[in-house]
Amino acid sequence: MKGTVLALSGGVGGARLCAGLAAVLPPGQLLIAVNTADDFEHLGLPICPDLDTMMYNLAGLAPPGRGWGLADDGSGFMTALRRLGGADWFELGDQDLATHVLRGAALATGEPLSVVTERLCRQLGITAQILPMSDDPVHTRLHTERGTLSFQQYFVREACAPQVLALEYQGAERAAPHPTWFAPLRDGSLSAVVLCPSNPLLSIDPILALPGVREALRQSPVPVVAVSPIIAGCAVKGPAAALMTQLGIGEGAAAVARHYSGLIDGFVLDSSDGAEADVLSAEGGPKSLLSEILMLTPAIGRQLATAVLDFAAELAGGA
Amino acid sequence: MKGTVLALSGGVGGARLCAGLAAVLPPGQLLIAVNTADDFEHLGLPICPDLDTMMYNLAGLAPPGRGWGLADDGSGFMTALRRLGGADWFELGDQDLATHVLRGAALATGEPLSVVTERLCRQLGITAQILPMSDDPVHTRLHTERGTLSFQQYFVREACAPQVLALEYQGAERAAPHPTWFAPLRDGSLSAVVLCPSNPLLSIDPILALPGVREALRQSPVPVVAVSPIIAGCAVKGPAAALMTQLGIGEGAAAVARHYSGLIDGFVLDSSDGAEADVLSAEGGPKSLLSEILMLTPAIGRQLATAVLDFAAELAGGA
Repeated sequence: MKGTVLALSGGVGGARLCAGLAAVLPPGQLLIAVNTADDFEHLGLPICPDLDTMMYNLAGLAPPGRGWGLADDGSGFMTALRRLGGADWFELGDQDLATHVLRGAALATGEPLSVVTERLCRQLGITAQILPMSDDPVHTRLHTERGTLSFQQYFVREACAPQVLALEYQGAERAAPHPTWFAPLRDGSLSAVVLCPSNPLLSIDPILALPGVREALRQSPVPVVAVSPIIAGCAVKGPAAALMTQLGIGEGAAAVARHYSGLIDGFVLDSSDGAEADVLSAEGGPKSLLSEILMLTPAIGRQLATAVLDFAAELAGGA
Repeated sequence: MKGTVLALSGGVGGARLCAGLAAVLPPGQLLIAVNTADDFEHLGLPICPDLDTMMYNLAGLAPPGRGWGLADDGSGFMTALRRLGGADWFELGDQDLATHVLRGAALATGEPLSVVTERLCRQLGITAQILPMSDDPVHTRLHTERGTLSFQQYFVREACAPQVLALEYQGAERAAPHPTWFAPLRDGSLSAVVLCPSNPLLSIDPILALPGVREALRQSPVPVVAVSPIIAGCAVKGPAAALMTQLGIGEGAAAVARHYSGLIDGFVLDSSDGAEADVLSAEGGPKSLLSEILMLTPAIGRQLATAVLDFAAELAGGA
C-alpha cells in the first residue's frame, strides 16, 4: 500500500495495532490521531493516558502484559508519595514520571501538546507521527447513576461499577482536530484510514466528535476500516462491552460496526466472530474480514496490521 | 535548658546540628528557620534544597555520606529524563521527586510554603518545627566575573569556579520573616538562638537580610550562639571559604565570628582551631567554645548540640 495511513486510536489495543502498522509501513507513512479526552491533571502533572500508551508501545517500551506505563519501571516515587500522605490512587512509575514532568514543564511555557508530543516521540526514536486528536482540551464526562464522573473517576476510583446514563465530550465542539492529521483526511491524500480496536464510546467517539471529522470520514475517497475491540461479545480490556449495553448500542462486534455506520467501508472481526460477520453481511453492512485480532504478541500485531492494510487495498480496488 | 531554641540554618551542616538539637531537646522545643534563598524551579517543580535537606535529616532519611537527597533513592526518573532529552544537570531521585511534586501541587493551590512544609514534616514524623525563613520569595544572586548567576547556576553548573564580586538577596527587603519563628525571637520568649554551621554568606545572611532580623538578634535577651562552618580555614562543604576570601570577609573561623559581630554572644569553633579562638579573645570578640564540630555521625551531632546548649546556658547565666 502506497501513501500515508491515518489511524484513529485510544490506548492499549489501538496502540498495539499502531505498533504493528508502524512496523509494516515504510517510515513516515503512519499518522496516528490519539484520543485526549481522558487526559487529566494529577498532582499538578498533565497525564495523557492514551498518548503515553501509544508512545511507549511504538518505542518498544510498553510492558508486555499490562495496558499502561513502562516496562520494568520502579515504584520509589509511589513509596515516597505514600510516606508523605500524597494521593496514591493513580499509579505513576519512576520512569513514567519523566514524561509527565517534562510535558508539564513544556505546556507551562505555552507549548502546544502536539509539539511536546512530537519532541518526546523523536527522542524515543519513533518514526510514526503521533498526534493528540486536538491541542484544545476535551474532557469526557460520564453521567451515571452516581453523578457525573471524569473518566479516571469512573475507571480507576469507581472501577467502572456505576451504571452510565449518557456520555459527554466536553469542549469537543470547540476543539480543532489537529491539522497534521485532519488536513490529509479532508483533502483525500491518504491511502487508508483505520479506526483502531479501542473503546468506540470512550476512545474513538471523542475523536469523531471534533468538528468536521465525521463528515470527512463519510466523504473519504479512501477506504475507512475499523477493527473490532469486541471479541465474542467481550471487550479485550476495559468497560467497552458494558458501556455499549448500558447506552443501548447493543452487544457484540456487529454492534460496533453499526455504531460506525456510514463512516466505515470495512470491518475487521475476530476469527471466532464469523456469526457476527454473517449478521453484518445479511444487514448489508460494511464488508467484513475475519482475522486474529487479539494482539497478545507484537508479531500478531504486525500480522493484523498487514491484514488490515491488505483489506483496505482490496476495498480501494473496488473489490 | 528550658524553653524553645531557635536555629537559623542552611543545608547539610546546619541540618546535622539541628538533627542533634532535635534529639537532645524535649519534643516541641526546637524551631528551625531555614534559608529559602536558594530555592528555584526546575522542570516546573519547586526545589527547596535547604528545606529538603533539613526535613530528610530530621526524619532520619538523609544519606550518611552526602549532603542532599534521600538515602537509597533510585535513578529511574533521571534515566527516563535523559532518554527523553530533558535537562539532567540537577539530580532528582525517584523518592525525592515525591516531595517536589507534592509541594508543587500544594503551592499551585495557593498554599504557603510554610503550610506545605509543616504537613510534609508531620507526615515524616518530625517533631521539631521546620519553617521556611519566609513564605515570600527571596533569590540569592551572585554577581560574578561571568555575569549574574543564581545559586544553582553558580554551584552546580559553574562548579563555583567564577570569581564572585558581590551577593544580592533579591526580594529580601520585602519578604516577611515567618512569624512562627520571628515572633518568639522578637518577644524574647526563646531560651537560645543558634546560628548553625552553614555558609554565612549564602545560607545565614539571607535570613539576616529579612527586615528586622538583625535588629532582633542584636536586642535578643537570650544568648545567640554561632557554630563555625569553617574548620582549619576550610569549609566542610561548599564554597564558603572561597566566597569569604573573594568578598573580603577574611579567612578562618574567626572571620565568621567577626562577620556576625554585634549579633552573637558566643562562638563555637572546632577543637583544632584553638589559635582562632585566641585571636577572637584577644580582639574582645564573643566568648568562644572549642568542640568537635565535624558531624561525621549523628552521635557527634548530638554531642555538639549538647555542647552548644550548655554553652548557651552558661552565657545566659552570665558566666
